[in-house]
Amino acid sequence: MTKEELIAQIRLKKSYLCVGLDTDITKIPRHLLSHADPVFEFNRQIIDATKACCVSYKINTAFYESQGIKGWDAMEKTVNYIPSTHFTIADAKRGDIGNTSAQYAKAFFDVLRFDAVTIAPYMGEDSVRPFLEYKNKWSIVLGLTSNSGAKDFELQQVGEEKLYEKVLQTVAKWGSTENLMFVIGATRADEFIHIRKILPNHFLLVPGVGSQGGSLKEISEKAMNKDCGLLVNVSRAIIFAGGEENFAEEAKHTAEQYQREMSTYLK
Amino acid sequence: MTKEELIAQIRLKKSYLCVGLDTDITKIPRHLLSHADPVFEFNRQIIDATKACCVSYKINTAFYESQGIKGWDAMEKTVNYIPSTHFTIADAKRGDIGNTSAQYAKAFFDVLRFDAVTIAPYMGEDSVRPFLEYKNKWSIVLGLTSNSGAKDFELQQVGEEKLYEKVLQTVAKWGSTENLMFVIGATRADEFIHIRKILPNHFLLVPGVGSQGGSLKEISEKAMNKDCGLLVNVSRAIIFAGGEENFAEEAKHTAEQYQREMSTYLK
Repeated sequence: MTKEELIAQIRLKKSYLCVGLDTDITKIPRHLLSHADPVFEFNRQIIDATKACCVSYKINTAFYESQGIKGWDAMEKTVNYIPSTHFTIADAKRGDIGNTSAQYAKAFFDVLRFDAVTIAPYMGEDSVRPFLEYKNKWSIVLGLTSNSGAKDFELQQVGEEKLYEKVLQTVAKWGSTENLMFVIGATRADEFIHIRKILPNHFLLVPGVGSQGGSLKEISEKAMNKDCGLLVNVSRAIIFAGGEENFAEEAKHTAEQYQREMSTYLK
Repeated sequence: MTKEELIAQIRLKKSYLCVGLDTDITKIPRHLLSHADPVFEFNRQIIDATKACCVSYKINTAFYESQGIKGWDAMEKTVNYIPSTHFTIADAKRGDIGNTSAQYAKAFFDVLRFDAVTIAPYMGEDSVRPFLEYKNKWSIVLGLTSNSGAKDFELQQVGEEKLYEKVLQTVAKWGSTENLMFVIGATRADEFIHIRKILPNHFLLVPGVGSQGGSLKEISEKAMNKDCGLLVNVSRAIIFAGGEENFAEEAKHTAEQYQREMSTYLK
């Protein structure tokens, strides 16, 4: 998907919501467990219920890998089921030496046909480059994450700047606003105005709204740019909004609330 | 596997060789492609040929994920085929917020039953902790990697020290020499004496010998400790030593050469 296509979807739906399919099999409603593939069945119903009010789905690979081969199969079925109008993200946080990163790029872009994959920047340029070589595919590099561990390294001072700022500035040079986004946690709202000075035009993938406590209002006010420039991800607070047979309806209801709030922030 | 068991294997075999199963399906001998699972068949023969002279196998998950579900299946069969005398490493470079890292730990320790998994440290403590909670399992955290991109962030100055030194010192406090190792690339031989001052007692997983050009002699002289404290990984230079029907024999021959050299460095 191109940047223009993504922006068009955001304008059409008045939404910059990304629904995170962190489908933990121990948390899905029990009546689904009799299905041949309960995780896919859960995702299928969540996608049907939420696709009108979101522009993106993020599949967190950990929740699928923990189910072994069955999980990998459920992931493949899920990404194939997502409508082509929606921006698909493999939240995989991969990254390795060049020839290995090329294999990860193949896995997520060629085989699973995601639009985007999240990447850990620690190993530097040759670990990111192979992902950037794919046309109309996106590398979403970790900048400042939403978790408490961000203080251990990301927020440490490297010369005049913090490590995550160094990452944003350095990685931005390896690609463009057409193939690079950055992960900035919603729990770091104080940093957003500053981050927009470093990256005025990039899309930011913002997790941490919902269960992790980030404020949609604050992020939107501080970090929206002329293209919107935000994909705000909500996982658990939407997909596990209802715990019973009504789970898809409850997910829809919650996703609609986020969409309505987003529509008020969009110019 | 415990640290004592690993040391016993190193003494028994006079080897600290880890064979890296970076099994690229486009590089395996063509006669294997008629097998139902060519990647597993290749690995099976490599394991049979090399198990007498190595103490560990490292499976690079990227080469399996790039084959989709079939690849995940080949990985599962391979790790189950490796003898329990050998230390098994999932070279997966995972790491995410706590509840997600817990899913990765489940995937690699419970489902696939690896002894160890490699972890990217960027996201900090809560991204590593869930892996450390497993008894007799190992977290192998990226310190200083063998690739050119190491200069972008790992070698940057953070206050009085380089980022990778900060990572070694900080992460070492989260676990012990019984459940933590670090990745230090063989191409960084100059740094090994210094690294041993920071981590005198930890095992180091050292990739970069062979195709990447690191010197086994230099690393062994500079970084071996009383327990050996090294697992030196060689991937392509062993598994692709021969390109034809003789591939397993050639792999055995090359692995034996490494083992013989290692036996001269072991006290």
